[in-house]
Amino acid sequence: MELKLQQPCSLADLAVKLDAELVGDSVANSSSMITHLSSLEKATVGGIAFLSNPIYKKYLASTQASVVLMGADDAKDSPVTALVTANPRLSLAKLLQLCAEAESIAVGVHPTAVIGQNVQIGQNVSIGPNCVIGDNSIIKDGVVLVAAVVVGNRCVLGANSKLYANVTIYNEVQIGSDCILHSGCVVGSDGFGFAIDPKRGWVKMLHLGSVMIGDRVEIGSNTSIDRGMVDNTIIGNNVIIDNLVQIGHNVVIGDNTAIAGCAGIAGSTSIGKNCLIGGAVSIAGHISVGDNVHITGTSAVSHSLLTPGVYSSGFPAKENSVWRRNVARFMSLDRMAKRIKELEKNMVNI
Amino acid sequence: MELKLQQPCSLADLAVKLDAELVGDSVANSSSMITHLSSLEKATVGGIAFLSNPIYKKYLASTQASVVLMGADDAKDSPVTALVTANPRLSLAKLLQLCAEAESIAVGVHPTAVIGQNVQIGQNVSIGPNCVIGDNSIIKDGVVLVAAVVVGNRCVLGANSKLYANVTIYNEVQIGSDCILHSGCVVGSDGFGFAIDPKRGWVKMLHLGSVMIGDRVEIGSNTSIDRGMVDNTIIGNNVIIDNLVQIGHNVVIGDNTAIAGCAGIAGSTSIGKNCLIGGAVSIAGHISVGDNVHITGTSAVSHSLLTPGVYSSGFPAKENSVWRRNVARFMSLDRMAKRIKELEKNMVNI
Amino acid sequence: MELKLQQPCSLADLAVKLDAELVGDSVANSSSMITHLSSLEKATVGGIAFLSNPIYKKYLASTQASVVLMGADDAKDSPVTALVTANPRLSLAKLLQLCAEAESIAVGVHPTAVIGQNVQIGQNVSIGPNCVIGDNSIIKDGVVLVAAVVVGNRCVLGANSKLYANVTIYNEVQIGSDCILHSGCVVGSDGFGFAIDPKRGWVKMLHLGSVMIGDRVEIGSNTSIDRGMVDNTIIGNNVIIDNLVQIGHNVVIGDNTAIAGCAGIAGSTSIGKNCLIGGAVSIAGHISVGDNVHITGTSAVSHSLLTPGVYSSGFPAKENSVWRRNVARFMSLDRMAKRIKELEKNMVNI
Repeated sequence: MELKLQQPCSLADLAVKLDAELVGDSVANSSSMITHLSSLEKATVGGIAFLSNPIYKKYLASTQASVVLMGADDAKDSPVTALVTANPRLSLAKLLQLCAEAESIAVGVHPTAVIGQNVQIGQNVSIGPNCVIGDNSIIKDGVVLVAAVVVGNRCVLGANSKLYANVTIYNEVQIGSDCILHSGCVVGSDGFGFAIDPKRGWVKMLHLGSVMIGDRVEIGSNTSIDRGMVDNTIIGNNVIIDNLVQIGHNVVIGDNTAIAGCAGIAGSTSIGKNCLIGGAVSIAGHISVGDNVHITGTSAVSHSLLTPGVYSSGFPAKENSVWRRNVARFMSLDRMAKRIKELEKNMVNI
Repeated sequence: MELKLQQPCSLADLAVKLDAELVGDSVANSSSMITHLSSLEKATVGGIAFLSNPIYKKYLASTQASVVLMGADDAKDSPVTALVTANPRLSLAKLLQLCAEAESIAVGVHPTAVIGQNVQIGQNVSIGPNCVIGDNSIIKDGVVLVAAVVVGNRCVLGANSKLYANVTIYNEVQIGSDCILHSGCVVGSDGFGFAIDPKRGWVKMLHLGSVMIGDRVEIGSNTSIDRGMVDNTIIGNNVIIDNLVQIGHNVVIGDNTAIAGCAGIAGSTSIGKNCLIGGAVSIAGHISVGDNVHITGTSAVSHSLLTPGVYSSGFPAKENSVWRRNVARFMSLDRMAKRIKELEKNMVNI
Repeated sequence: MELKLQQPCSLADLAVKLDAELVGDSVANSSSMITHLSSLEKATVGGIAFLSNPIYKKYLASTQASVVLMGADDAKDSPVTALVTANPRLSLAKLLQLCAEAESIAVGVHPTAVIGQNVQIGQNVSIGPNCVIGDNSIIKDGVVLVAAVVVGNRCVLGANSKLYANVTIYNEVQIGSDCILHSGCVVGSDGFGFAIDPKRGWVKMLHLGSVMIGDRVEIGSNTSIDRGMVDNTIIGNNVIIDNLVQIGHNVVIGDNTAIAGCAGIAGSTSIGKNCLIGGAVSIAGHISVGDNVHITGTSAVSHSLLTPGVYSSGFPAKENSVWRRNVARFMSLDRMAKRIKELEKNMVNI
């Protein structure tokens, strides 16, 4: 696919805009115009492509791109003209912005939206069709509610935050500025907390805490974040959360932590700053994960991890016949260990 | 965070209301007023805190709470005044109710709601903005549909059940009384059932069964419960289901079973009564889990488990370097077992 | 439960309709009327039941069904009259269609729907209550949007596709013909792509690609499919996807592949044709899974799997006490392997 640059741009100008250095090119070429962005594999003449993940370097030899955004190491032996930058991924982020069409947002409240009593709505707010805002909520400047967003009572939505269609925000939730919430995500639902009454079975614990979300947070589609029971659930600044993630009641997540899709964090657990939580990771309740901890995909965390580092418990899939044999052996691993011990004892006796 | 009690309450009165005994306090103090509820860690003077999970006992020495709700064992050496109760968690449930503000519910049908033909609506029902109710459905007394809830045709919603915003109920689903369904949950979508036609590939099986949900059931946000193909999917009474749970077609779940977040139960499996299904547990299709079975978090159940007890298959995350070495060994575990056998044979020969 | 056939039907006629042969029955009986469909276990006289999964054969001896749909092998020793077919599951799909009531669909645009500018709407389209369609979208003939469906700008919905309540489609998404999308599914949300700016932390990558979905695709409830960053996310024809599945940005899925519930596929991974991805499977990003690969439930795929075959990495749950012992041994498996090596060395020395 080709993404058109909003303004065709000379190689020299592009270098300035992307904070990059033009390498492997004559002065004459620096004036050649770049009109579009593509992946390496699908690039065409006149286009810029990008190499930000080493596994795609194999496409460098055959790419039709006129120039490729890359790091200095990849540029050393690059067969194509390179725009070299210290942080190719960050430069790519800038490049994507050069391709984005300005979407015109209809400022104002759509006639089908239902606004509660005593709602404060800031400047340049867009409240789309079929949105519902509860009583006494505050919608700050520049907020965009795309369509069919439901916001409860006594909520605060910070400046310039964007909530896509069918997002649900329960009562009293506070969301910081410059956040993005994707469709189907739910913030502030009751946590999974119950007492057992011997006569009646499960008895619901009311959840009277709420959810506080910092600034520059992105939350993926169909992700659930539960409210706290007494204290709040807290999401720090610049936290990024992917789709279908479960965040239990009273969880606390530190600034700049990233949580990939299908991960689940059980109640009352705290996660530090700058953590990377891989896809489909499960983290038990009532534990602590320290700062700068990286948990690789599909791992299960059952105890606190306080020391920075990389932690894992996933198994890679193998041919079923091989896998089954090893699993069968695993199921008698304790007996196997005892047999080794026995052998060692006998060996000593010889 | 401090949760205000709706009525400040003397220690003596609180003891009565929570079915607790005041311990470690003089008669004079029994008249001191308690104004709010906090967690142990964040408590302040004049407040009540709670100790219902032993891992928080470390905060008991330093808590600023005037009194702490706890069990008899914890009270023996408590440095603070205690309200001692046989079931601290159940007493905490009562205490939370003393803090809850009565939310005024707008009885009636919001003008933006769309009500189908021949819908029966009981007394004291609240149908909020943008809700849609299909034809021939029955909404019993005291039901609350918060906003943007979609209910299909020929459904029954039992008395006093509450459906939060953006819940979707497909046709013919029946929900009992006193249920709570959280936002984004979907009840009655088609099960994942297909035949293979050699010429056309996958061919859809129509799903003509439905979903029957008992009384006092709570269903978490973004949870999916599929309808049955011929028979119904059945959820018993007082079943509690967390967020992002998948319940396949024709699953049957017994009374009082609890299912934690991110769990998945494949089609046609039956789960007994009083089971505890941990977070991120996966249960295969067409099997049976008996009564009183506890499956710990992240386990995978591939065969029937008919005997009560605790079952597991999760691995706790370890330092990545250690983990990788052990996984590499696991992949040759079958060969390792054979080498032990060989050693044992040779040992006998010595 | 009994599903009534829309028209009672003689055994002989049913055999024709289901492409089946009547076995174990006298000519007289071939005229007896069948009025309903049930499961084997719950069947009653006058009804047809089905045996399409061998584990239910145990109910054959006691079923009250007047006739049972089954394969030739099961019919050999069947104690009940059989309708024998080469593909019982496909015949069951036909049988279910004989039981389905024609649901009358209200053709036209419901007055509460909000239709953007320059939207093209085909023949026999049904756009239900509270749906929202963005500008410049194309809704082809026979499309059904049940209720509260939100479709973005510049989308295409192919002929006869059905989107259930509360589905969300982002801008520019294209969906083929004869697709079914279940409630709460989200197609086209931004992928989880960020650059790191040393000063500001995570910086969002705009996602300017979209999602292209083929014909005859079914997508389950609360499933998320992210849009691509530069290129598109692509779902082939006749792909079937269950509930709560995560499909990351730029994933490509080949024709006829089936993906069971709670599976997650990370970004930029390609999956071949005719694959079976089991429930709760996790597949890492930037890898390839070839055609005709079957990954069993709960497996984690971290490397490309290019050879057709069955792959696994799941562990079945065991009694917790047994499991814990074996896990403890696993954590010293590397040391155990070294002890075996040591024993082997000593054995040679004897």
